[in-house]
Amino acid sequence: MRKLAEAEVERALQDLPEWGLVGESINRTYAFADFRAAMAFVNAVAESAERVQHHPDILVRYAKVTLTLSTHDANGITTRDFDFAREADRIAGS
Amino acid sequence: MRKLAEAEVERALQDLPEWGLVGESINRTYAFADFRAAMAFVNAVAESAERVQHHPDILVRYAKVTLTLSTHDANGITTRDFDFAREADRIAGS
Repeated sequence: MRKLAEAEVERALQDLPEWGLVGESINRTYAFADFRAAMAFVNAVAESAERVQHHPDILVRYAKVTLTLSTHDANGITTRDFDFAREADRIAGS
Repeated sequence: MRKLAEAEVERALQDLPEWGLVGESINRTYAFADFRAAMAFVNAVAESAERVQHHPDILVRYAKVTLTLSTHDANGITTRDFDFAREADRIAGS
């Protein structure tokens, strides 16, 4: 799995406007109706993470969930991160 | 719910050596065997949080979970935070 060049990351982010670049990772914060809805999302994301063996950092702050994605083995951002970002958006329905 | 004075926080922390003071909150990082074990802990903590209506910030980084506690209504640390810290330790079994 090859680390993406900066231009490749920028281009991929154009299709994911809710996602931002933070250092060597991409992240998005999702807002839900309440803590229960946030936790339902977290558990669905966790199931996907186990299935594909790619685990985002997950921060829950009451009804808000921030996912942070990078690929440790590549020491940066790879297509796996963008694949997972799209999967998380699909789970969240947005 | 009254915000605790600094000396009260320091005293309470002496009984919780794994917990640290970070700004106006207390936190602890728990290490588990793997992501699944970490998520089981997160879900047990989330159930407790809903029951007592006191919600820590929860950060999951693969097998590590960091809980951060403060009381927004009091704009600082209260006895509710220490009660929840003890409950989380009980859930983690340490």
